[in-house]
Amino acid sequence: MNTFGRNFRVTTFGESHGLALGAVIDGCPPGIPLSPEDIQPLLDRRRPGNSSRSSARKEADQVQILSGVFEGTTTGAPIAMVVFSTDARPEDYDRLKQVFRPGHADFTYQAKYGWRDYRGGGRSSGRETVARVAAGALAMKCLALWGVRIHSRICSVHGATLPEAIDEEIRQARERGDSVGGILEVQVSGCPVGLGDPVFGKLDALIAAALMGIGGVKGVEIGEGFRVADLLGSENNDQIRATGFLSNHAGGILGGISTGQDIVVRIAVKPTSSIHLPQHTIDTTGKEVTIEITGRHDPCIVPRVQPVAEAMLALTLLDTLLEQEKYRNFAARIK
Amino acid sequence: MNTFGRNFRVTTFGESHGLALGAVIDGCPPGIPLSPEDIQPLLDRRRPGNSSRSSARKEADQVQILSGVFEGTTTGAPIAMVVFSTDARPEDYDRLKQVFRPGHADFTYQAKYGWRDYRGGGRSSGRETVARVAAGALAMKCLALWGVRIHSRICSVHGATLPEAIDEEIRQARERGDSVGGILEVQVSGCPVGLGDPVFGKLDALIAAALMGIGGVKGVEIGEGFRVADLLGSENNDQIRATGFLSNHAGGILGGISTGQDIVVRIAVKPTSSIHLPQHTIDTTGKEVTIEITGRHDPCIVPRVQPVAEAMLALTLLDTLLEQEKYRNFAARIK
Amino acid sequence: MNTFGRNFRVTTFGESHGLALGAVIDGCPPGIPLSPEDIQPLLDRRRPGNSSRSSARKEADQVQILSGVFEGTTTGAPIAMVVFSTDARPEDYDRLKQVFRPGHADFTYQAKYGWRDYRGGGRSSGRETVARVAAGALAMKCLALWGVRIHSRICSVHGATLPEAIDEEIRQARERGDSVGGILEVQVSGCPVGLGDPVFGKLDALIAAALMGIGGVKGVEIGEGFRVADLLGSENNDQIRATGFLSNHAGGILGGISTGQDIVVRIAVKPTSSIHLPQHTIDTTGKEVTIEITGRHDPCIVPRVQPVAEAMLALTLLDTLLEQEKYRNFAARIK
Amino acid sequence: MNTFGRNFRVTTFGESHGLALGAVIDGCPPGIPLSPEDIQPLLDRRRPGNSSRSSARKEADQVQILSGVFEGTTTGAPIAMVVFSTDARPEDYDRLKQVFRPGHADFTYQAKYGWRDYRGGGRSSGRETVARVAAGALAMKCLALWGVRIHSRICSVHGATLPEAIDEEIRQARERGDSVGGILEVQVSGCPVGLGDPVFGKLDALIAAALMGIGGVKGVEIGEGFRVADLLGSENNDQIRATGFLSNHAGGILGGISTGQDIVVRIAVKPTSSIHLPQHTIDTTGKEVTIEITGRHDPCIVPRVQPVAEAMLALTLLDTLLEQEKYRNFAARIK
Repeated sequence: MNTFGRNFRVTTFGESHGLALGAVIDGCPPGIPLSPEDIQPLLDRRRPGNSSRSSARKEADQVQILSGVFEGTTTGAPIAMVVFSTDARPEDYDRLKQVFRPGHADFTYQAKYGWRDYRGGGRSSGRETVARVAAGALAMKCLALWGVRIHSRICSVHGATLPEAIDEEIRQARERGDSVGGILEVQVSGCPVGLGDPVFGKLDALIAAALMGIGGVKGVEIGEGFRVADLLGSENNDQIRATGFLSNHAGGILGGISTGQDIVVRIAVKPTSSIHLPQHTIDTTGKEVTIEITGRHDPCIVPRVQPVAEAMLALTLLDTLLEQEKYRNFAARIK
Repeated sequence: MNTFGRNFRVTTFGESHGLALGAVIDGCPPGIPLSPEDIQPLLDRRRPGNSSRSSARKEADQVQILSGVFEGTTTGAPIAMVVFSTDARPEDYDRLKQVFRPGHADFTYQAKYGWRDYRGGGRSSGRETVARVAAGALAMKCLALWGVRIHSRICSVHGATLPEAIDEEIRQARERGDSVGGILEVQVSGCPVGLGDPVFGKLDALIAAALMGIGGVKGVEIGEGFRVADLLGSENNDQIRATGFLSNHAGGILGGISTGQDIVVRIAVKPTSSIHLPQHTIDTTGKEVTIEITGRHDPCIVPRVQPVAEAMLALTLLDTLLEQEKYRNFAARIK
Repeated sequence: MNTFGRNFRVTTFGESHGLALGAVIDGCPPGIPLSPEDIQPLLDRRRPGNSSRSSARKEADQVQILSGVFEGTTTGAPIAMVVFSTDARPEDYDRLKQVFRPGHADFTYQAKYGWRDYRGGGRSSGRETVARVAAGALAMKCLALWGVRIHSRICSVHGATLPEAIDEEIRQARERGDSVGGILEVQVSGCPVGLGDPVFGKLDALIAAALMGIGGVKGVEIGEGFRVADLLGSENNDQIRATGFLSNHAGGILGGISTGQDIVVRIAVKPTSSIHLPQHTIDTTGKEVTIEITGRHDPCIVPRVQPVAEAMLALTLLDTLLEQEKYRNFAARIK
Repeated sequence: MNTFGRNFRVTTFGESHGLALGAVIDGCPPGIPLSPEDIQPLLDRRRPGNSSRSSARKEADQVQILSGVFEGTTTGAPIAMVVFSTDARPEDYDRLKQVFRPGHADFTYQAKYGWRDYRGGGRSSGRETVARVAAGALAMKCLALWGVRIHSRICSVHGATLPEAIDEEIRQARERGDSVGGILEVQVSGCPVGLGDPVFGKLDALIAAALMGIGGVKGVEIGEGFRVADLLGSENNDQIRATGFLSNHAGGILGGISTGQDIVVRIAVKPTSSIHLPQHTIDTTGKEVTIEITGRHDPCIVPRVQPVAEAMLALTLLDTLLEQEKYRNFAARIK
């Protein structure tokens, strides 16, 4: 399943060290002004090497729009966006051809497919998110027409919560050849009331799938999240006054449907699986080996997950908004 | 969206105080022996009033199978299961017709549909899970053919972790007219390696959606979950020996695909929204009112969520198993 | 796949001689007035024994609405409709348990599932269409809000085109223990322009699937249909004046999208497979036998297919209308 | 909806005179050997200018595979295929910017989207089928592993049925600046028994959608097709002997499920809409104009539809085959 969404459908393709990565977006409203300049800044933000915190791989990541835009505007036809690879170094990975890296999908892909593109993780690489971010940038343009805005912040990295302390944790991890995880919070403001569907299409369920599906994410919580386990109903319920809700413990969603308050989601991101320290593993013949992974790897992917998480939330919200729009004009006709 | 799954598709219907609740299951393998006796025990476990911990509503919850089974065996045709209501008391809810109960979906349903079945929450009621549990019981029968087993345990309720302390927390909450939340852990053993799909169909993403979509669930985590934020890569990676993985920090899933180890998921369940204490709210005209909810309500739904969470995990796993089976016979033909 | 539609999703269940047939409708707009009286007249029209032309099976076919309607109005929740069987006579079919009736799905169901509900064809029986007609009746109510109307007529039966001649053909077929087929035309008036989607979601493709999926239908054509093979482009093109199209050879669809003209579709319905004449066939052990099918069977199902074809067209159009509505409010926001 | 299929999912993109056309194929079995050489011959067959019968546009139509293939073999990851345009001449269409060509989708696209890529029909152009044929070539490779073969033949063009007479009809149409339609038959041999699903997923319904969704197709029939209207049940039923069916009036499908016999489908293809003769139409302001379409256009697209129809049938069959494979291993486990 390389397609996300029911209404604003994003199909992605491409491997870490293949020829190109890309996305085809089907179901985009016609009439949206769109050019590569709308996409590029978000891709640049996702890119490694754009800060002292991240790895050294240098990719221009120049997006091209192959279809679906005519005279600068979306036409309703599917929009294909492609980023051709310019700094692929598949030969870096020849050593890993026969070995399952701990924490990576090497073992499960081999078991599932009987086959594996070992070049930098192939399809399981974080580089796959280039396509998500490109599609998310377009979703954000659409959402902006409704006043919806999405942003995120790093809550903590390896226990540290202040920027300097976070940088220090990352620096130390890099120095030791190890890696660190952390927690991100993503917030949506300006969300219309009524998005999401009861039972299996709940907005929180869709958000959970969207964010848990990002590589390295191991937990998702909404509003008070896991803290609800320690709260009383009288503490956790959001009481209402004529002026609105008195609190937002629910994180902007009740019964799976948006309340109009800010949507607040937190995700846990695991420490990068690629570390320079020696680890026990086996090769494809089952023989035990010790592996020390070299090459360019971020010791902490939390900052790079930020634009990806924002993109996935944008895709989710636009999809539910289109779902809800279907019924708007019936009400007027019923009278 | 009242349908769950791509291959084993479950469509549910029914409101808390309507005539009936039910599920139609499409895509069930033919040849599975099935009778109401296979379903009933799980429904009984979900039922309120089956323990000192839960509410006083008494429903026989007798399941009938209307189609899809012939001479005691599934035929490949859709299986309709129905539970007719026998203890519906819609008149209990007349007082709530005009009022939005805090923590409930009353406000969001009204805003979304311009219309609301106010009888006990209608479609947003926890009673909707009758249909999920019935469908899950069938999924578990199918999974048992592959050796897959699912069970769950209560980790904590309002901070308490020992059974006696948990009972005491619930007792106190009931006495005070308040409610408490908690944490559940669901485990899968015997899961085949290779379930789940890369990118948007990751097993952990599907599980997150399945469990976050249960009413009252505010967080989902897999394996170490939110604890990964405080771990080093060298601590979190599961190293491998010839005999298998040396640990299971990942919770049985790598790159979105099952490793064959136990799958370990935890969810946070919020305190019951219906409490007897006075709360601020508004009515449908926007006027401020104080509400004290009376009637039969569990002060803690954590134990009743257990069979629902198990059912949702069963539905998710069977769906991915069928997805994976599609390709099995191609490999043999390629040689 | 027992679900039809992407937006107005209809899931049906039930076998010919099972306990009940029914449909669950998900995605119906809220606020539509609905009672069994809206459904019943169409079910009665579909029913055998309602005219001299059809078979003698007597079913009350009383529809019950189990969910999704509150105080006489749809709520946005899934609508379950059920028709319990009252005149099932499964024992009539004991003789057919081991034999594959020519023209029926007996052989293919057995081969596909290794299993077969032999009672009157089980799921493959024309009685399955009860659920389609019930769901279609609701779709027609929704479409009426937009001014869309659907009707059909019999073009021919076994070559006869006049009502009296048609009746005579059917009478003769019954007398001889044989059966006859025919052609139906279904028309849609008041269809909004713009329904349907390019490439794989073309309105004509969706209509073709909807109608070819009715049991016994072997051909579907739109507008001039198969006659286009003998026309010149200059004859077949619909030229345009300021007052509109000068003709409707296209049958109301251009490039897969409705033009606003009447949609005109014709389908070919095969002669009933159950005939009283002796036929060669085999039993489930492969042994050759001769079969003479007795019992109540229409010698011509063309009249009974009429309400089914109308229902399927209604489901198709409402689904595309909801699809199109999603984008309506974006245009206004773009300026 | 630019995606076809549930299991072997093909998403296409691109406009007639845009930068590129392409397809992303998701759900392809891993392990299939694949190179551009497997695709190219079918693209060449579809290409205009490859015979005396077709138009003069010269496109190399060189396919590139951007992802999903590693070391010459499919990996289970999505396969992106792209054909970059080399002979696009959008300026040819400047005159048509404001005018709706009769028989084309110009009017409906403008009405639907409020917007239109007027360059050669944009997304509605027959050139869109490049992507279908590329994807179909891969589907055929997969089907060949199961012994399934697909071929087609021209039954008639403007009444003519012999090759010389067909050529003559096309030659005359070109000379007069007019166009002609015809009928194609597509056959599948080696199809396994059991493909297709009851009710809404019938194999004939899926085939009807697949073929009616090709631009210019106005009718689809299976087996005897529209001729069933004139047959008796005793003539149309396929009787069975121990050695198999005695005839194939059904066209290889009973109850929506393949019988194992040859599948036989015929489609009606309309005369090309672009003709050189003067036609009445209106411009985008509603003003009446007369249009004479110049430029390179086939007077008959029937031969070029052949590889497209074969491709669509291949996609449909492979999709149902994967659907059916899901359940194969359950049977063995039930004993």
